[in-house]
Amino acid sequence: MKPVIAIAMGDYNGVGPEIILKTLRSPVVRQLCVPMLVGSIDVFEYYARLMKYRIRLKEIDSIPDKFTAGIIPLFHLRKFQKPVIQPGTISKEAGDYAAEAIEISAELCRGKIVDGMVTAPISKEALHLAGYRAPGQTEMLAKLCRTDKVAMVLIADELRVGLTTIHSPIKKVAKSLSRGLIGEKLSIIHSSLKKDFGIPRPKIAVLGLNPHAGESGSMGEEEMTIIGPAIRIAKRKGMCVDGPFSSDGFFGIHKYRNYDAVLAMYHDQGLIPLKLIGFEIGVNYSAGLPIVRTSPDHGTAFDIAGKGIADSSSMIEAIKLAVKIIHNRKRK
Amino acid sequence: MKPVIAIAMGDYNGVGPEIILKTLRSPVVRQLCVPMLVGSIDVFEYYARLMKYRIRLKEIDSIPDKFTAGIIPLFHLRKFQKPVIQPGTISKEAGDYAAEAIEISAELCRGKIVDGMVTAPISKEALHLAGYRAPGQTEMLAKLCRTDKVAMVLIADELRVGLTTIHSPIKKVAKSLSRGLIGEKLSIIHSSLKKDFGIPRPKIAVLGLNPHAGESGSMGEEEMTIIGPAIRIAKRKGMCVDGPFSSDGFFGIHKYRNYDAVLAMYHDQGLIPLKLIGFEIGVNYSAGLPIVRTSPDHGTAFDIAGKGIADSSSMIEAIKLAVKIIHNRKRK
Repeated sequence: MKPVIAIAMGDYNGVGPEIILKTLRSPVVRQLCVPMLVGSIDVFEYYARLMKYRIRLKEIDSIPDKFTAGIIPLFHLRKFQKPVIQPGTISKEAGDYAAEAIEISAELCRGKIVDGMVTAPISKEALHLAGYRAPGQTEMLAKLCRTDKVAMVLIADELRVGLTTIHSPIKKVAKSLSRGLIGEKLSIIHSSLKKDFGIPRPKIAVLGLNPHAGESGSMGEEEMTIIGPAIRIAKRKGMCVDGPFSSDGFFGIHKYRNYDAVLAMYHDQGLIPLKLIGFEIGVNYSAGLPIVRTSPDHGTAFDIAGKGIADSSSMIEAIKLAVKIIHNRKRK
Repeated sequence: MKPVIAIAMGDYNGVGPEIILKTLRSPVVRQLCVPMLVGSIDVFEYYARLMKYRIRLKEIDSIPDKFTAGIIPLFHLRKFQKPVIQPGTISKEAGDYAAEAIEISAELCRGKIVDGMVTAPISKEALHLAGYRAPGQTEMLAKLCRTDKVAMVLIADELRVGLTTIHSPIKKVAKSLSRGLIGEKLSIIHSSLKKDFGIPRPKIAVLGLNPHAGESGSMGEEEMTIIGPAIRIAKRKGMCVDGPFSSDGFFGIHKYRNYDAVLAMYHDQGLIPLKLIGFEIGVNYSAGLPIVRTSPDHGTAFDIAGKGIADSSSMIEAIKLAVKIIHNRKRK
């Protein structure tokens, strides 16, 4: 049985609907899963017309017993409303739709009506206009799943990188770190590597926070007071964890190839190398959630929205990864 | 006339002397310049024996009028002392020697006795043991040149990246930033690109500090209050400066290829991409100084010191760059 994957539309003024339509034409994707769209039929028809794509969508209210080849089922939000689509602009309404698509997809996952979800990029500004305060989708999904045990993990090629802090301003990063937080992220990633990636004894590398990983305290003390102790505690719990490593040298000599995952302390420390190593194939995975959720690692790309030139590789990789994780979890 | 380059030995328990000896065997280096060692003859003889290299060193007290091919001139420090060499260990004495080699080399440059200097890696811990408080060589050299107008610029392949803060712990980075500091680094880099690299109208990109460059203030405000205004001021002064860019996407789409230099806000933001793009060829350049100084972008690598396996590519690139800058400055 192919898994059913809910695909949340994202911000309809960004590249989300376009890359979803492109993804639906991928034979690999159609072979791996049954995609089910969550969003507005008007949006998908608008972008399909723009790109001169022929696509057959079918509005559904519940999951059919049988899927018809070539017809894409779609959960159509806000039945009596027609969204105002303006590619490249930020709008409250687009934020509303984007949030609702995520909420419905998460509900479908939690009710086991679908097997997993993949989300297209959203605009945090649009989401804020619509009254949503979560700094990102990962945090939003954690709340929808009524947990705070989540780790954002980015995956490209041989690199899996988890983030200790996600959307913290740099000035708050050091203060946000604690042995407890690092320990929690390590546990989440460790058990996700086993359960979701089928790695029986995962090896995790932890990066330092400061230049040269603090160089014995001369450039910052968090490696000695927080990160080092957190690593030792994780080791005592039986996990295979090394570090803290100086992050520039760690990536420079491709040391990440010796590990199943790397834990970064903050956003750009993990995302700069990830995007350099695999820009068009990076996938964002929310480890630790009861549901399976992935997404492409890029944003709404408002500057190229509606032009038909967005690359769907990262979206395709996101779907492939969701399917892989669903299978790995079932195997357990 | 070939320029004369002083090569400061670095920490003699690290890979410095080894990579210097390897570099001296490079035909490219011998063709480009006259290398002059600053350090201890005992150290170089020790490592030459270890690697079974034949090398002819000649102690000098002043610059000879004529250099004999195949014989390397050497300024021998601490004539009546024999250093205790223990590869891989941190020692006060090694710190003392390393600092003195830098000081003497800088003096030789300032007195125009040599044309430029290249420094091998030092250990900041050893330097601290020896009573030196500067967080790094760049800061030390600025002091020796009686200036505080210096910018650490790292160069590899098509990427030149300058650092706004160098060895600041992450928790102090945001507080250290100011419009004045960023403006100063932009001026130094701008005029260095013109004078040292021969680029008549340089283009500089500035990175944001926070995730997604703050995403309009939702993930940090320094882009709006400090970095953005600093860029506008620089533009009004006639410089061609763009940004602030979200650093992960900037490197992911290789946007740095459109610029002559990139200004990063902190160490790892610049060094992670630099080392991923060109680990073995990265060069550190101290822009803004009256003297010409470069160095390899790696550290002492104590773990492989004395094993004869260190790679000298970065050192060779450092010498090539110093020679190039010396020629560019003379052309002005």
